[in-house]
Amino acid sequence: MSEMIMILNGPNLNLLGGRQPEVYGSDTLESIETACRTHGKALGLDVDFHQSNSEGRLVDLIQQARTSCAGLIINAGAYSHTSIAILDALLAVDVPVIEVHLSNIYQRDEFRHHSYISKAALGIICGLGAHGYELALDALARKLGTTKGST
Amino acid sequence: MSEMIMILNGPNLNLLGGRQPEVYGSDTLESIETACRTHGKALGLDVDFHQSNSEGRLVDLIQQARTSCAGLIINAGAYSHTSIAILDALLAVDVPVIEVHLSNIYQRDEFRHHSYISKAALGIICGLGAHGYELALDALARKLGTTKGST
Amino acid sequence: MSEMIMILNGPNLNLLGGRQPEVYGSDTLESIETACRTHGKALGLDVDFHQSNSEGRLVDLIQQARTSCAGLIINAGAYSHTSIAILDALLAVDVPVIEVHLSNIYQRDEFRHHSYISKAALGIICGLGAHGYELALDALARKLGTTKGST
Amino acid sequence: MSEMIMILNGPNLNLLGGRQPEVYGSDTLESIETACRTHGKALGLDVDFHQSNSEGRLVDLIQQARTSCAGLIINAGAYSHTSIAILDALLAVDVPVIEVHLSNIYQRDEFRHHSYISKAALGIICGLGAHGYELALDALARKLGTTKGST
Amino acid sequence: MSEMIMILNGPNLNLLGGRQPEVYGSDTLESIETACRTHGKALGLDVDFHQSNSEGRLVDLIQQARTSCAGLIINAGAYSHTSIAILDALLAVDVPVIEVHLSNIYQRDEFRHHSYISKAALGIICGLGAHGYELALDALARKLGTTKGST
Amino acid sequence: MSEMIMILNGPNLNLLGGRQPEVYGSDTLESIETACRTHGKALGLDVDFHQSNSEGRLVDLIQQARTSCAGLIINAGAYSHTSIAILDALLAVDVPVIEVHLSNIYQRDEFRHHSYISKAALGIICGLGAHGYELALDALARKLGTTKGST
Amino acid sequence: MSEMIMILNGPNLNLLGGRQPEVYGSDTLESIETACRTHGKALGLDVDFHQSNSEGRLVDLIQQARTSCAGLIINAGAYSHTSIAILDALLAVDVPVIEVHLSNIYQRDEFRHHSYISKAALGIICGLGAHGYELALDALARKLGTTKGST
Amino acid sequence: MSEMIMILNGPNLNLLGGRQPEVYGSDTLESIETACRTHGKALGLDVDFHQSNSEGRLVDLIQQARTSCAGLIINAGAYSHTSIAILDALLAVDVPVIEVHLSNIYQRDEFRHHSYISKAALGIICGLGAHGYELALDALARKLGTTKGST
Amino acid sequence: MSEMIMILNGPNLNLLGGRQPEVYGSDTLESIETACRTHGKALGLDVDFHQSNSEGRLVDLIQQARTSCAGLIINAGAYSHTSIAILDALLAVDVPVIEVHLSNIYQRDEFRHHSYISKAALGIICGLGAHGYELALDALARKLGTTKGST
Amino acid sequence: MSEMIMILNGPNLNLLGGRQPEVYGSDTLESIETACRTHGKALGLDVDFHQSNSEGRLVDLIQQARTSCAGLIINAGAYSHTSIAILDALLAVDVPVIEVHLSNIYQRDEFRHHSYISKAALGIICGLGAHGYELALDALARKLGTTKGST
Amino acid sequence: MSEMIMILNGPNLNLLGGRQPEVYGSDTLESIETACRTHGKALGLDVDFHQSNSEGRLVDLIQQARTSCAGLIINAGAYSHTSIAILDALLAVDVPVIEVHLSNIYQRDEFRHHSYISKAALGIICGLGAHGYELALDALARKLGTTKGST
Amino acid sequence: MSEMIMILNGPNLNLLGGRQPEVYGSDTLESIETACRTHGKALGLDVDFHQSNSEGRLVDLIQQARTSCAGLIINAGAYSHTSIAILDALLAVDVPVIEVHLSNIYQRDEFRHHSYISKAALGIICGLGAHGYELALDALARKLGTTKGST
Repeated sequence: MSEMIMILNGPNLNLLGGRQPEVYGSDTLESIETACRTHGKALGLDVDFHQSNSEGRLVDLIQQARTSCAGLIINAGAYSHTSIAILDALLAVDVPVIEVHLSNIYQRDEFRHHSYISKAALGIICGLGAHGYELALDALARKLGTTKGST
Repeated sequence: MSEMIMILNGPNLNLLGGRQPEVYGSDTLESIETACRTHGKALGLDVDFHQSNSEGRLVDLIQQARTSCAGLIINAGAYSHTSIAILDALLAVDVPVIEVHLSNIYQRDEFRHHSYISKAALGIICGLGAHGYELALDALARKLGTTKGST
Repeated sequence: MSEMIMILNGPNLNLLGGRQPEVYGSDTLESIETACRTHGKALGLDVDFHQSNSEGRLVDLIQQARTSCAGLIINAGAYSHTSIAILDALLAVDVPVIEVHLSNIYQRDEFRHHSYISKAALGIICGLGAHGYELALDALARKLGTTKGST
Repeated sequence: MSEMIMILNGPNLNLLGGRQPEVYGSDTLESIETACRTHGKALGLDVDFHQSNSEGRLVDLIQQARTSCAGLIINAGAYSHTSIAILDALLAVDVPVIEVHLSNIYQRDEFRHHSYISKAALGIICGLGAHGYELALDALARKLGTTKGST
Repeated sequence: MSEMIMILNGPNLNLLGGRQPEVYGSDTLESIETACRTHGKALGLDVDFHQSNSEGRLVDLIQQARTSCAGLIINAGAYSHTSIAILDALLAVDVPVIEVHLSNIYQRDEFRHHSYISKAALGIICGLGAHGYELALDALARKLGTTKGST
Repeated sequence: MSEMIMILNGPNLNLLGGRQPEVYGSDTLESIETACRTHGKALGLDVDFHQSNSEGRLVDLIQQARTSCAGLIINAGAYSHTSIAILDALLAVDVPVIEVHLSNIYQRDEFRHHSYISKAALGIICGLGAHGYELALDALARKLGTTKGST
Repeated sequence: MSEMIMILNGPNLNLLGGRQPEVYGSDTLESIETACRTHGKALGLDVDFHQSNSEGRLVDLIQQARTSCAGLIINAGAYSHTSIAILDALLAVDVPVIEVHLSNIYQRDEFRHHSYISKAALGIICGLGAHGYELALDALARKLGTTKGST
Repeated sequence: MSEMIMILNGPNLNLLGGRQPEVYGSDTLESIETACRTHGKALGLDVDFHQSNSEGRLVDLIQQARTSCAGLIINAGAYSHTSIAILDALLAVDVPVIEVHLSNIYQRDEFRHHSYISKAALGIICGLGAHGYELALDALARKLGTTKGST
Repeated sequence: MSEMIMILNGPNLNLLGGRQPEVYGSDTLESIETACRTHGKALGLDVDFHQSNSEGRLVDLIQQARTSCAGLIINAGAYSHTSIAILDALLAVDVPVIEVHLSNIYQRDEFRHHSYISKAALGIICGLGAHGYELALDALARKLGTTKGST
Repeated sequence: MSEMIMILNGPNLNLLGGRQPEVYGSDTLESIETACRTHGKALGLDVDFHQSNSEGRLVDLIQQARTSCAGLIINAGAYSHTSIAILDALLAVDVPVIEVHLSNIYQRDEFRHHSYISKAALGIICGLGAHGYELALDALARKLGTTKGST
Repeated sequence: MSEMIMILNGPNLNLLGGRQPEVYGSDTLESIETACRTHGKALGLDVDFHQSNSEGRLVDLIQQARTSCAGLIINAGAYSHTSIAILDALLAVDVPVIEVHLSNIYQRDEFRHHSYISKAALGIICGLGAHGYELALDALARKLGTTKGST
Repeated sequence: MSEMIMILNGPNLNLLGGRQPEVYGSDTLESIETACRTHGKALGLDVDFHQSNSEGRLVDLIQQARTSCAGLIINAGAYSHTSIAILDALLAVDVPVIEVHLSNIYQRDEFRHHSYISKAALGIICGLGAHGYELALDALARKLGTTKGST
């Protein structure tokens, strides 16, 4: 039986592919969603995929994940650096959380080097583009035991 | 034909398994090396695995990787936070670099939140324990094209 | 004739009781609302009770309080530490404002020690759990003259 | 043929005229909208005028401006100082952006001296009250070539 | 049977009523003491009321409270911002401590925004003038069980 | 009858056109002076235009403006960031002051983000190149009533 | 009729003459008191001279000065840099206060560069040794009108 | 035989009397010069009195004082806070230097709290208005021995 | 003939044994005094042992030590971190000073990491509990020559 | 039966005696080793004494001490202030660690005031020269029970 | 054919030889000029040598160098640390710039450690006294090709 | 008779020529060594040339230079910014030290702007590429008197 994983995407990630491709790559959010669903299925994971520009909506979604999901992957975009509300929602969630960033935030503006989210995350994957989401699914699968260790 | 990947481990990582298992997990460095070799092979990657407590020795090894390897994975341990020399060595390397940390460094001492290494890394994976090394190999395999995209 | 008091609760306060009870206590937001209504009635105060995870919605509600309420009690949760928008809304309100926090924010993370809200508040009550709301109603009642001084 | 300009107003600007007139002046947002429409028409510019207290809604609107407008004027109010999400939305927009503030933010609280928005703006006009919007329209008209240089 | 509560007042609070009434209100310390005794009695609490300009004397008094009192209310005035000695004395006390400030210290000089005392306090009440002492007694009564919950 | 406006230009602005045109544009200071005179005339404003590389000379000129001018426009260049003497001279002037910067100083070196001048200015216009001077004249004309509101 | 001036000396000033004469000069506190009395008499001022090592005692003395003295001279020694309690006592005093330091505190340790006292002082005289007390008496005499202007 | 004292006044001090009298008092620089000459004569001191808005000119004058004067009084105005060049000139002068400020700079903007000049001064007198110059002459007279100690 | 050593203990050290034993150990101050007397005697040192909660009293005692003692051991407790007055008293003492802390202050709150006392101390011993006092006596004995070197 | 104690000396300590004797004293490292061996023997402790200029070598030695020694004394010299690698090695060691510094590091350069080592040390002894090593042995002997308490 | 090099000296360098020779050496500015002319001639370089105490004058001279000189050597003295105006003038110059300091500014006051000039300089030579000017000429000669490489 | 000069090169300088030539130039370390030997010979200086990636090895070499060399030139590379151990070794050396950097470190990352080495250096030469080593030899030759002054 497969587990449900919520994948949350923050502000402006709906623009992926069109916006600053030299920073964020050429994948669209739709192609990332498709890749996640496919990869999740192979790992025994169902994917509940969302994007919102609203901090409050992201808090709402995280609260829903508390009861409906076995794991959570979040790329909170700009809210990573400013939102204690999202941090608090994640702290209230008992399932493992993986933080993902498409770009290497440590090679960008100083104010992007700090993420509140990291305080609530099991692990962080950043700079690996769309592939980072798949690796996060791998990490959750390993954690949740739907897959085995190294093969 | 497989590519060579150098995996570098910094100070005190030779103590893994015995040292503060609540922080670093119970895997030993030997078991990580074995997992990396096995996982690498599946990805078409050969693994050149090293550990040193010496900053200078790590710089030497990175310089060697310039000509001998197609990718580099580094868990520089404590030197992540203090060594500009290792950063400079990595900046002189043309192959993709993945930074790995076993623990989530953002949930530990303030002085562990900053890594000089990140300035030279393609991507960072942290908090996912020994599994992080395997994910780093996945990322390099995808980058180097020895494996395909999402399956 | 009784006065209307708006009581505003910020992000994640809808989780009270279930979320980190060692920090926030075991009262639910519903039980707090009930206690406030009961206590308010005894003080000659009607209570207009709200919770929202959205910063913008909280701004909207404060703006409504300008014309409909004689006093305002706000536990802005995480937004206390990050929202100048809520501060500005409160500065535009002429009625007395009491800031409430369930936990003692000065014994938690450094980034929770500063509250923008305090700049617009008549008074602050923190660390006294659900009882803090009732004390805030007492303070407003005294301020608005619906009750007398010490008995 | 006239160009479309989006004019965005952030939190609490709907209170203009009534709120702290010694800081923000006595113009209402409606009178500013009217003045902008009139002045825009004279410059060959159509005006799409919005206000929202919600950060996420402002991000949504900026994303719409990407395809519908030739220029953007934004007075993000309190979000100027706290919102990287709005900054990122603006960075994804190719049209010229003018940042406007009614008051001189450098004569107010220290935390109002820094604006994330400025990183994405062509120019900034502040302290000139409602007139600042008209000057911003002048600047866009000059930039877009709907008007000529100095007369 | 009633419980004993020590109420401690720090430097310059003996001047209340005469000194800067626009900041501290027009109540004298004597009227506050009277109000506390009256209010305490209604709550089943006896009040041991002190004022001193001496940091060392305040430390002495807190040490006495360790064995003689069931709760402690402290308005340490200026020492709130500078005295680690008083903090340490309070940390050595097992009874609940409520910190009170007459004025809203967050609307005054920057150096008044930080209180060492808060690290040892159960709760903080500030900005509510002399009424704050009565609310602190309410909080202790609720905590000590001499009164019931909301009525 | 027209009003006199002093326009002051600080160090290195005499090099405009030749110096770093990618930062400062291709207008020369002479062409800006001409545009200001023409635009001023249309607004009922006479223009007294100066440039100096000397901080003391700029202070002298501002002092002269106290009695001879109805308004002052200043682009203090590098002195914006370092000169309290110019700030003090402006504070001693009773006429409205508009601060102008050709480039968007918030997108340049960190040390260019702060301007002492802003503390004495009615308004600030920056990043709009030579056009910024004309907009400053518009603002003064509106302020001084030589022109009407929006047309 | 002569006015009463309180002269307050803080911790370790009783050691003057013997302690670090290269910093504080060779005058003893007794010789300073004598010089102040003689100089005060010539200016129509009586002198009430005190020294204490206790912060609380200094607060007590300043409170007494509120009703008994027409002016106050204070060399608070080390407490200048650490005591908000003394600052608050001085703020509650209506008579003019002159702050005196024997040594030039700006040429000593960094932590001696800041004095809380200065916020409550009319003027500050520092670095002029024992003579500074006499100059402070001159300043008070001029302020209180017991002497005339320049002769 | 009398000694020569140079008195230097920095930027904007020529405006004294007219400029912000609530900060700087109603004395003009001319009346201060007259008072200094009269008071100096009584102390056996000749006065060489200058004002300049130019930092470089002030450096020139200080260099002249090296050979022509027995003491130097400087109110460097705004340059106190920004000029290392004036500090260096003073450090090259062997005669005693007294720093004077009309206002209490510690009660004004944060950036006025630090003076480079103080590093080179024997003593500092601030907040005592025009009288401060006369007290500085007293201090130099005492130092140079043209007058005796306390009378 | 034996030398006299003053041992000074600051605020709250009279609570030792009862207060936070996990931080300060289970020794009482009395048992420390006894151990010091016994150990001192063996080293040819008489011990003058004091405790006070008052900063001023500690300054008084240090001043007495100037003439009566050959060495001074001080555990200033919380005043270590806040008292420049005690530092100044110690700087006025010519005898060797050893600073002692029971706990390792570098493993506690950030504000306990800095000690003003250290600037005046010959040596510092911290984290070694009550034994630290005896080691301090050893150090003074070696320094004063009442004992020989290593045995 | 005696216990083994490792004593580690960091960079440049091999120069002792010859290098800056006014800072480090005139003892050579050899004489310190001899004194430690003699003193250790009297305490029932064997001494394993090392010096290295290499951070990596010091990490190696600490790792060896994990299994071979009952206690560790470390004077890490300059690495105290810069080496997180040595801190991590010490954190992995279960035996008690005493940190020693020959000079009082709090009276030297600001960058010598902080030691990473202190986070892993039981206690710190500094400023007492070569004698500090012997006191550290005393502390370990007391801790390990090879000697009794105060005599 | 020889190239023209401008050598600029900032405030107080005209005092060289007489002023603080322990810091700046005993060479006079005249002897430096002579040495530069002689050394320049040997390198095929003509020298245009200036000194000014005025920041504005130095900006003027740098602007002249734009068209008249092939290289520029600048010892801006105190203005190195405070003048963005001089930095901007240098940034507008296309010829290579060498920054020279007589003393090692990194061993002096903290505020002398930072030089704005360095941002515009090809290279920096400091601490080598008057010889530094000659080395700067060597560097320019090598750069401009009037001399060959190593001999 | 010629003097011996040690020239030390820190981490990654062995990569010169191949690594980031746009930053470090195209000279190899071998060509720099050759140029130094040739240039040294002309100045009467023998050259002892080393490179190491190890901080400890560099400390060892500096310690050797104490007895074998008359001067020392060091380009410590990345260790300039992080190594107090190297600083301490240099402070223990009595011969003159010249610090060299190939690139202008003040135009690179913020963390490269500070060099610990500078505290121990006679002079610093930076930004002049390989030529900087030759200029450093010139400076030492002048200092040691193997060459005369300006020719």
